[in-house]
Amino acid sequence: MFKEAVFHRPKNNFVYAYNSETLHVRIQTKKDDINSIVLHFQDPFAFDGVGIEHSTVAMTRIGTGSLYDYWQGEISSPHIMRIEYCFELSDGEETCFFGESGFCGAYEEIKNHFRYPYLHKADVFDAPEWVKETVWYQIFPERFANGDPSNDPEGTLSWGSEPPSETNFFGGDLEGIIQKLDYIKDLGVTGIYLTPVFKAESNHKYDTIDYMEIDPQFGDKETLKRLVKEAHDKGIRVMLDAVFNHSGYYFKPFQDVLENGEQSKYKDWFHIHEFPVKTEPVPNYDTFGFTYTMPKFNTQNPEAREYLLKVARYWIEECDIDGWRLDVANEVDHAFWIDFRKTVRDIKPDLYIVGEIWHDSLPWLQGDQFDAVMNYPFTSRVKDYFAYRSISLAEFREGIEELKFMYPQNVHDVAFNLLGSHDTPRILDECGDDKEKVKLLFLFQLAFSGSPCLYYGDEIAMFGGGDPGNRACMVWDEESMDLELLEFVKQLLHLRKEHKALSRGEIGFHVREDCLAFEKHYGDETLFVVINNSDEPGTFEFDHEHFSFLLLNGESVEEEKAISLPPKGYAILKA
Amino acid sequence: MFKEAVFHRPKNNFVYAYNSETLHVRIQTKKDDINSIVLHFQDPFAFDGVGIEHSTVAMTRIGTGSLYDYWQGEISSPHIMRIEYCFELSDGEETCFFGESGFCGAYEEIKNHFRYPYLHKADVFDAPEWVKETVWYQIFPERFANGDPSNDPEGTLSWGSEPPSETNFFGGDLEGIIQKLDYIKDLGVTGIYLTPVFKAESNHKYDTIDYMEIDPQFGDKETLKRLVKEAHDKGIRVMLDAVFNHSGYYFKPFQDVLENGEQSKYKDWFHIHEFPVKTEPVPNYDTFGFTYTMPKFNTQNPEAREYLLKVARYWIEECDIDGWRLDVANEVDHAFWIDFRKTVRDIKPDLYIVGEIWHDSLPWLQGDQFDAVMNYPFTSRVKDYFAYRSISLAEFREGIEELKFMYPQNVHDVAFNLLGSHDTPRILDECGDDKEKVKLLFLFQLAFSGSPCLYYGDEIAMFGGGDPGNRACMVWDEESMDLELLEFVKQLLHLRKEHKALSRGEIGFHVREDCLAFEKHYGDETLFVVINNSDEPGTFEFDHEHFSFLLLNGESVEEEKAISLPPKGYAILKA
Repeated sequence: MFKEAVFHRPKNNFVYAYNSETLHVRIQTKKDDINSIVLHFQDPFAFDGVGIEHSTVAMTRIGTGSLYDYWQGEISSPHIMRIEYCFELSDGEETCFFGESGFCGAYEEIKNHFRYPYLHKADVFDAPEWVKETVWYQIFPERFANGDPSNDPEGTLSWGSEPPSETNFFGGDLEGIIQKLDYIKDLGVTGIYLTPVFKAESNHKYDTIDYMEIDPQFGDKETLKRLVKEAHDKGIRVMLDAVFNHSGYYFKPFQDVLENGEQSKYKDWFHIHEFPVKTEPVPNYDTFGFTYTMPKFNTQNPEAREYLLKVARYWIEECDIDGWRLDVANEVDHAFWIDFRKTVRDIKPDLYIVGEIWHDSLPWLQGDQFDAVMNYPFTSRVKDYFAYRSISLAEFREGIEELKFMYPQNVHDVAFNLLGSHDTPRILDECGDDKEKVKLLFLFQLAFSGSPCLYYGDEIAMFGGGDPGNRACMVWDEESMDLELLEFVKQLLHLRKEHKALSRGEIGFHVREDCLAFEKHYGDETLFVVINNSDEPGTFEFDHEHFSFLLLNGESVEEEKAISLPPKGYAILKA
Repeated sequence: MFKEAVFHRPKNNFVYAYNSETLHVRIQTKKDDINSIVLHFQDPFAFDGVGIEHSTVAMTRIGTGSLYDYWQGEISSPHIMRIEYCFELSDGEETCFFGESGFCGAYEEIKNHFRYPYLHKADVFDAPEWVKETVWYQIFPERFANGDPSNDPEGTLSWGSEPPSETNFFGGDLEGIIQKLDYIKDLGVTGIYLTPVFKAESNHKYDTIDYMEIDPQFGDKETLKRLVKEAHDKGIRVMLDAVFNHSGYYFKPFQDVLENGEQSKYKDWFHIHEFPVKTEPVPNYDTFGFTYTMPKFNTQNPEAREYLLKVARYWIEECDIDGWRLDVANEVDHAFWIDFRKTVRDIKPDLYIVGEIWHDSLPWLQGDQFDAVMNYPFTSRVKDYFAYRSISLAEFREGIEELKFMYPQNVHDVAFNLLGSHDTPRILDECGDDKEKVKLLFLFQLAFSGSPCLYYGDEIAMFGGGDPGNRACMVWDEESMDLELLEFVKQLLHLRKEHKALSRGEIGFHVREDCLAFEKHYGDETLFVVINNSDEPGTFEFDHEHFSFLLLNGESVEEEKAISLPPKGYAILKA
């Protein structure tokens, strides 16, 4: 037994309250090393039938990564309070026990059990329920639709007349989004996420001038209120983008610091290294990156913190928004985000909070800060497999199972899973212009659990590469839209809505070499998804006697015991 | 290379800000598997000489446990903001790189580096400085000294006339502690920790009746104020015990619930499962253990929370106490403790917060909750080696190095390291009445870093086994005190005060089989400690030419190249 590869440490992704009556206990072991694991547990104070007495449950191998097997056991009872536990591991030859003091040969020899000290409702991860069945649509407002030419800034270019640049403007605005809500609803989307809409200098608006005003190029508060109201009427939620890591250069408090230096009452709102403030050659204050136009907030300063929390409250109270996406969230201190969560949840208990973090985000996903992060680790894995084909089928399955084990299941239930955003190249470009690959990506994204997000225009096969090419004007001319792809995406969204096994079911891979195949279960329903991610047609055995096709690019053959799929063919079957 | 045994995950004990200019980065590998590790790091936004560009530092093997080697690298700069990093591991045959996406063969192949997103002062662990050089003395007030017989409860027994029982009283009080402050100061102690002093039913006072009153058997607020003042005048800090997990049965709000049931305005202060409230056969409300006299607080209820926070503030503001020890701290929700820390630190920024947690406590030691916990994992390791001799010298060294790696170094700097308490058998009993063993335990405890705590009476060789025998009346009759042990403890405390290498230096074991030997460095000073934890005398080579003895039970031999130690002999040498 490779004991050195066994890892468990209480909390984080290894033991957590899935809900107020269920604990998930997990452990990782060397791949293919352990045959079975039994979880022993009890209330340390139990006696004479009072409290949960010594019990066992067989753990399930819930996944396998490139190096490890991942196991999970569930303790479920309406009476969970305190739990101490240990693991009994067997590899066929040896059986040993593993507790907080390490390994030993017998249950009685365990010095210290692991401990889940108390299951408190206050500590349970409590993301909003509605998120689990929401599909998002990310909109870059300057480029989605121009609904009110009267607010176009000077020099606005005619819609789509030029490629997008870092500095040009096309007149997109909130009124445009309102006018296109039917398109969005028709697509099947139930949430829109708008990149920043507050008064700012650039076309992307990540350099805020005034957090309390809508950018006049986009409209005003009344327009946003109307947008939210009309979206809500159509069953669509609205999430805004909060840029609280840094302000823009023209943000009044920062201008005040530039003007009044050490005398400015805002001097502690930022991290100024020394006075006078210099912007060149390198800013002598903390910034986003080393960009002098994006001075970093000092979120430890009580006034700055209070101001930002006021902003967070204001747009919920004023316009009834449903979510906040938090820009550069990993570079802001945890203490601020804990306050932020309390503040916004006090006003709107089911507000969705999504941090922009590209890397391993566990410290922010403990239930006291964010509900989700922009799940780029998902993005990179699906692109590696479907778009670049740089990893094998086995590596893809392993990568997804590693990802699943990285976080508690609660976290995956509401993960913000995206194929791309305004910060990544268009997914069609990533696929080398191969629309059939894009379809497989959409299919996998929408058959996976969590709260998926589509980037505006991807559904009609827009292209243009990375920033700023990925921010082109939305194409509204039907002749230039890829209506076939649009129809496909609509079909997937419709299936996801009708079949909760897609949105809510846990993924269970079939380990096979010829195609990607996985099950999804929810309630009484079981679905099978089969994907031929290759350039060769193939016939794939699929021995289920009673099933029907929900989606099929290929054909059913041999008395329904196999399916024949063309290159990049796929099927969704219902058992 | 055993890649499966390599573990690193950002945050927790694996990467943390040691202070605002220093990051510690750690990794564990299979024992004796890896020869060298190089840490690569940079600011992800660095360019053209701006920001920390790609740099490397050789990592140090800082310890070895039973299964793993533990490594640490330090990134030190006044300009640390964002850091991305990865590891270059070599085992002599193979070199590979390890980042967030796993292993690869070359630096350029790393897909995702690990990330320490931003070093915020607000996120740095900020325990008070004074704790690092404090030695504590734990007092069980009912049994330390009776300074005011006028407040003795009815039926008080004559001091020490009977063994302590769960229900008897001997009249100890705060006035008694005041009168014995000179004894405490003379001992060399600089902090006293009192188990609960608030109005309660039992002799241990963990079943609070009124959190805002001193138990009349102990005195009143004026007595406590005087105690704190006189202690402060003698350079002694005072820590009280907060029992916030549960109240006592006679706590008015709980009595109100018993009386008025669902009509009680306090019904949500507790976790009542159903009305009417029942205490038997099993209480139908949450309790400490299943003890009906200790109803558990609902710390998620705003009024209950506010009440407890008021209590926490009150005794700081009213009596100027310096620390709170938190009873059954692991069973109270994290959200409460985060509020608690903010509340008390706002009033007294250098207040010491110690949770009672017996097991792995990392989730509470992230900088947002406690400064320390009752370090029982330390207790059990030193008892296993010195008291029971149930582990070998190698196992002891491994156990201590595993313990050190469990937490950030900041945490160990202020760890509350104890040999015993009112909850464990007297250390003399644990040693089978062997006083020489007790000396070695004191020696190791006081030569180790952190904030050690002595349990009253251990210094004069009191005995009596476990609860309630461990709570006997303090012996004040000099003929019954072990004055030789007392002198030894005083000597150790004096050495610890004079030589900061003892209190502040990191421990560095010499790996040898014949005796326990370790170095401690601090500033320019290097000390060596040698302990012969056996029943055989021995001559131990110790080849340092220039050193002097600070403490020696044994003799220096052979031109100072060795020392001869009797069974359980010891020496502290200064280089």
